[in-house]
Amino acid sequence: MVKVAILGFGTVGSGVYNVLNKNKDILKKRTGSEIEIKYVLDLREFPGNPVDDILTHDFNDILNDPEVKVVAEVMGGVKPAYDFTKQCLMAKKSVCTSNKELVAKHGEELLGIARENNVNYFFEASCGGGIPIIRSLNEALIADDIDEISGILNGTTNYILTKMSSQGLLFDDVLKDAQDMGYAERNPEADIEGYDAQRKIAILSSIAFGKTVDHESIYTEGITKITPADLEFAKEFDSTIKLIAYGGKKDGKYYAFVSPFMVGRDNPLYSVDGVFNAIFVHGNMLGDAMFYGSGAGSLPTASAVASDIAHAVKCGDKTAYSNWQEGKIELSPIDSFESRFFVRIEKSLKETAKRVFGDGTDFKEIPMDGSECAFVTDVMSEKEFEEKASKLSGIKSRIRCK
Amino acid sequence: MVKVAILGFGTVGSGVYNVLNKNKDILKKRTGSEIEIKYVLDLREFPGNPVDDILTHDFNDILNDPEVKVVAEVMGGVKPAYDFTKQCLMAKKSVCTSNKELVAKHGEELLGIARENNVNYFFEASCGGGIPIIRSLNEALIADDIDEISGILNGTTNYILTKMSSQGLLFDDVLKDAQDMGYAERNPEADIEGYDAQRKIAILSSIAFGKTVDHESIYTEGITKITPADLEFAKEFDSTIKLIAYGGKKDGKYYAFVSPFMVGRDNPLYSVDGVFNAIFVHGNMLGDAMFYGSGAGSLPTASAVASDIAHAVKCGDKTAYSNWQEGKIELSPIDSFESRFFVRIEKSLKETAKRVFGDGTDFKEIPMDGSECAFVTDVMSEKEFEEKASKLSGIKSRIRCK
Repeated sequence: MVKVAILGFGTVGSGVYNVLNKNKDILKKRTGSEIEIKYVLDLREFPGNPVDDILTHDFNDILNDPEVKVVAEVMGGVKPAYDFTKQCLMAKKSVCTSNKELVAKHGEELLGIARENNVNYFFEASCGGGIPIIRSLNEALIADDIDEISGILNGTTNYILTKMSSQGLLFDDVLKDAQDMGYAERNPEADIEGYDAQRKIAILSSIAFGKTVDHESIYTEGITKITPADLEFAKEFDSTIKLIAYGGKKDGKYYAFVSPFMVGRDNPLYSVDGVFNAIFVHGNMLGDAMFYGSGAGSLPTASAVASDIAHAVKCGDKTAYSNWQEGKIELSPIDSFESRFFVRIEKSLKETAKRVFGDGTDFKEIPMDGSECAFVTDVMSEKEFEEKASKLSGIKSRIRCK
Repeated sequence: MVKVAILGFGTVGSGVYNVLNKNKDILKKRTGSEIEIKYVLDLREFPGNPVDDILTHDFNDILNDPEVKVVAEVMGGVKPAYDFTKQCLMAKKSVCTSNKELVAKHGEELLGIARENNVNYFFEASCGGGIPIIRSLNEALIADDIDEISGILNGTTNYILTKMSSQGLLFDDVLKDAQDMGYAERNPEADIEGYDAQRKIAILSSIAFGKTVDHESIYTEGITKITPADLEFAKEFDSTIKLIAYGGKKDGKYYAFVSPFMVGRDNPLYSVDGVFNAIFVHGNMLGDAMFYGSGAGSLPTASAVASDIAHAVKCGDKTAYSNWQEGKIELSPIDSFESRFFVRIEKSLKETAKRVFGDGTDFKEIPMDGSECAFVTDVMSEKEFEEKASKLSGIKSRIRCK
């Protein structure tokens, strides 16, 4: 029998409680140990809920109980989660978490403390909800040199873009609707400005490339400027617009960013709609692979935390290999990153645009109000694009193309 | 340093040789051991190829060498692979394989022998090429009760259906073309009749549901009867046709089959085109997840074998948990399986069809030669469908709907 504690009884915490109870027999069979929840830490009371019997308001009850071997930290935020996690690890308790903010900020240090204490710090649920991407990077894709990891890591923005595209609606209207339906937070900044995706791609890149990618150094653009016209034109180019989080290695340089991208129909990310997440991986031997699933939600996320708990139980006092080792990765400035660019302009600028971007440029006009056209450039660096674009006053929008 | 041997230097074997050499440093860093290929077994000679230095024609060189701890069996076929695998496992060498035929036929027994000898029998590469589905089922999705695993497991048939659909071509013509391009074998029966997918879904179902699903008991239909008209009508129903391999649990009954299915645009399998594979999983906590990638090819498959070798090296003399345990799963006859059915008929049968299948049935007519129409039934069992269908003489085709 292994005893565990859950820090926080919110959306994810109550999910973990349910998964561990509902799938108790399965977990026992597969790990060889019965997993019993001994404590749930929360400041609130839950009268009438069976969790009340094992509820504590004092973290020290958990920390000082030598029977507790694994702790699920599902409180979110850096404070006090950081201190709690550190203390648990130093007390030789493994910690499993869905807390992307904490992992992005202190992952390297906490992995190090876990190693020193022969326990584990697992965070499958921090990226992509129930999608087993972190385990795959650390274990199943061990024979590959990963040169790209990218994808749709934020369900809220993907829901908004999907809805804007299918119904021709304005960003603000869909956001309001998403808030009413509970798909977006009342304070939606972390989602719509791309910060949530930024933290997740920092974590995934750190694992894929082997050292810490500082999330604050990742160039990040959100989706607030995307218009129905952009999405309408995207269809003309057999594409759609997605908020893409990207980490990649090219010619010895590392890049990471979060930005809206035009994604063509032949790209597997094209058809990932609504609140779903998908993570694309390219390995030097594997080629292309993609992982798709519910990126959020109580039970999918809890399933990943519970799987980490089971893994920690199986590992006992042995630290599992993590590809995220000590050290920092220096990101190259986005200036030198190369892609094609979608550009939407006043129709009157078409001839100038041809002179600047080349005669062969393919223009599309659609019958909006008839005053606009759009084109996609050749592959060029951000810097080169900015130079050319500065010669065209009145660009309505420019969107990178995947 | 761990020494390994490769049985067979064909497409996959030479790929494994390349992956282990090319990513040697990465593998050393991640496993903590240098992995050295000591032998390659093949009946042929490869003059001028560096593999010639470590080539042997005698399996006993490998079997009797106590230095060899892990063997990659990438010969394919049951004979002599079965005997070789058994002997290796009994000599306490782990075996990693891409051999779906052998795993489907003798997986349970070979896993048992591995367990008895404290070594491992791994077969990630037997299903879905480089897609890490088996590792995910055995480890990352450990906290879930899986009730469905299904997908596109055969790249050749998916290539053929994609091409038929996009270009309106006949099955025979696309098959010939696929053979010329090397995407289909000269003897294509195993692919086009669904036997390859049948073996793979037997393996995946055995892992997902915990006991052996006998591949020979799986109802199997291939794609040879699919016509351009079927694919044309599919588009009218906002669908396409895919060869789906299915394993599922419903109300305590187990089902498994391989059959062409109509797949709607909102299904993530809809946009899996060409030679790609995709595997859909539904867990009681996880909800929907999908794994996508190259289902075949030398390097993607070899990447999976090499990952298994690395895993075996890390496991040492400890057998890793496999969810595929001893015992058989009794499949329910397909008679009682429920789905909707797409039916294509002579237009003159429309009124009869309405009487049989209900007034609300939605008929589509497309301008082919104007003599046909098609409809999709309500959800009903196979048996019920067959009873109703027997009242309609002249059904041109019926295809299950996912």
